[in-house]
Amino acid sequence: MKTTIAVAKGDGIGPEIMASVLRIFEAANVQLGYEYVEMGKSYFDAGHSTGMTAAAKETIERLGLLFKGPMETPKGKGVKSINVTARKVWNTYANQRDFRSLNGVDTVFSKAGIPINLTIIRENIEDTYGGIEHLLTNDVAVGRRIITRAGSAQVIRYAFEMAKRKGYTKLACGHKANIMKLTDGLFLETFYEIAKDYPEIESSDIIVDDLCMKLVSRPETFQAIVLTNLQGDIVSDLCAGLVGGLGFAPSANIGDNISIFEAVHGTAPDIAGRGIANPTALLLSGILMLRYLGLTTAAANIENALLYTLEQGIHTGDFGDKATASVNTEAFADTIISNL
Amino acid sequence: MKTTIAVAKGDGIGPEIMASVLRIFEAANVQLGYEYVEMGKSYFDAGHSTGMTAAAKETIERLGLLFKGPMETPKGKGVKSINVTARKVWNTYANQRDFRSLNGVDTVFSKAGIPINLTIIRENIEDTYGGIEHLLTNDVAVGRRIITRAGSAQVIRYAFEMAKRKGYTKLACGHKANIMKLTDGLFLETFYEIAKDYPEIESSDIIVDDLCMKLVSRPETFQAIVLTNLQGDIVSDLCAGLVGGLGFAPSANIGDNISIFEAVHGTAPDIAGRGIANPTALLLSGILMLRYLGLTTAAANIENALLYTLEQGIHTGDFGDKATASVNTEAFADTIISNL
Ligand SMILES: CC(C)[C@H](C(=O)O)[C@@H](O)C(=O)O
Ligand SMILES: CC(C)[C@H](C(=O)O)[C@@H](O)C(=O)O
Repeated sequence: MKTTIAVAKGDGIGPEIMASVLRIFEAANVQLGYEYVEMGKSYFDAGHSTGMTAAAKETIERLGLLFKGPMETPKGKGVKSINVTARKVWNTYANQRDFRSLNGVDTVFSKAGIPINLTIIRENIEDTYGGIEHLLTNDVAVGRRIITRAGSAQVIRYAFEMAKRKGYTKLACGHKANIMKLTDGLFLETFYEIAKDYPEIESSDIIVDDLCMKLVSRPETFQAIVLTNLQGDIVSDLCAGLVGGLGFAPSANIGDNISIFEAVHGTAPDIAGRGIANPTALLLSGILMLRYLGLTTAAANIENALLYTLEQGIHTGDFGDKATASVNTEAFADTIISNL
Repeated sequence: MKTTIAVAKGDGIGPEIMASVLRIFEAANVQLGYEYVEMGKSYFDAGHSTGMTAAAKETIERLGLLFKGPMETPKGKGVKSINVTARKVWNTYANQRDFRSLNGVDTVFSKAGIPINLTIIRENIEDTYGGIEHLLTNDVAVGRRIITRAGSAQVIRYAFEMAKRKGYTKLACGHKANIMKLTDGLFLETFYEIAKDYPEIESSDIIVDDLCMKLVSRPETFQAIVLTNLQGDIVSDLCAGLVGGLGFAPSANIGDNISIFEAVHGTAPDIAGRGIANPTALLLSGILMLRYLGLTTAAANIENALLYTLEQGIHTGDFGDKATASVNTEAFADTIISNL
């Protein structure tokens, strides 16, 4: 059986990095079919308020899985990011980002010999991402954050399942329930409620500011952390910084019916079309997707080839603190393919 | 003229670190008088809901300046941290924390030769710290964040003034106005409004998740950052982690009538009374206070002695990643005094 997935190339550097990744998939004999969908900034500009055509939406819902490149956020008051809209439309309630030190990608932590291997699971729909705000007067703005037991439960359960699947021994809940006693309190209460179903995973909680302090000093002590939406957003990027930046961080948005795998970095309009972009984050997201689809052999094969390529010092222009590229996008993909 | 300030020793290790710091002040011939006030967990337990007696409140309001040790947060639903209450009672709207690499305090960044010298200014009253939350049902919690133009303006103006005073060339505004368009939008708008009065300071803004990513990879590129309350709380602790932890981070809560200088680490009940606690954060807060009071010579003198002591490798038990203490609290203070 061959699974078919929806593919949205994305804006800016999206099409070129997507082409590289799918070329690597093909070389690795990945058994997947693709249906390309119309989604991105230009579709928004053409009048589709969600950034996708009706046909794209129908295709994605039929196939249940979207692999997407980065998309530009349309400008303007009241306009939402296409990425955020997509998460909401399909209730992809869990955002998973895996952060791992990569040999060949130099960071302060890799130089200090501190290995990082941790996963952030972020609630992806609620909190201030509901966008419920109003101006009481011209000088007073009020925003609302809403946390529900059901919304918390689904992402927390996903986090425990993921921890189990990955063989993690512990899962922490990050929160600010000492200040937001009812909202984050509900999230935290739900965490310990669900933890009872997973006695094999050691559960603990940590206040988010303390968490950030520890992440920048002892990141190796963490395995998996689940958080509410905005705190999870902040902590995810912090962790991306630990391993070299968004160019090295895969991302999955998991829902019950539809899941989205995407690179979360920007569209880099300044270098778009020049064939020099770094496809690593999208490739890592693709590897996560292959595992999700049960294509574990292909996933491992591609992952090893990627890791080996990076270790060899082959890289595009935005790697860690190295200013110079050794290769362009296609040559990078070629090396990965030759290392398969 | 001799200024008199209010002093609250704090809970746990508070009294012993305060004693060390005031002994150093005395040796440095600091011209200050002290009035000790009754404030802390035991006063809360004795029925004072704000954690201080009426006499303490009166004294602090008369003197206008409080130097305080850490205080334990009373347990219980609906009970607020004494520190947070104090900030609110006296409208100390700006929280300033200076983060600086200290020779002798090893961190991942110091080992990589990355010098850190930056200040976080955090709005200290508004945002979700208003504590306005309710349960809509048992399963739905709603919290409110309120941002006002006046509240934003006072902290932002303080940040620009501080930047000027310190000779900084730039100030950034951290925010999440791409999601919280009205609330953080108001803060951001106010930032650029006030920036017009400070053409000599380069102003810019950065989305808070991106900020955290950059802080853990290129912290040396920042000088001063102003943020709303919760984001500022998170970013402050992240920065504390960069320089060795809360044991090395001074904190000032600035208001128009009353200001509070405090150590923001915990009360460490496990080691309280054993004479081994690290007084560095409280001493750094004290140095910040002396500068605020215009006692700049004494401030510089004590600061140099502290820096020199740390550089010599003299330290208490919680320094960076060194597990062993070379001295206890009093011997540490003695060395600083001998280095004056
Ligand atoms: C672009 C932005 C709206 C988005 C978010 O805040 O979720 C991004 O930071 C992310 O992490 O995917
Ligand atoms: C103890 C806690 C309530 C407090 C805060 O959140 O402000 C602390 O984290 C701080 O930064 O001073």
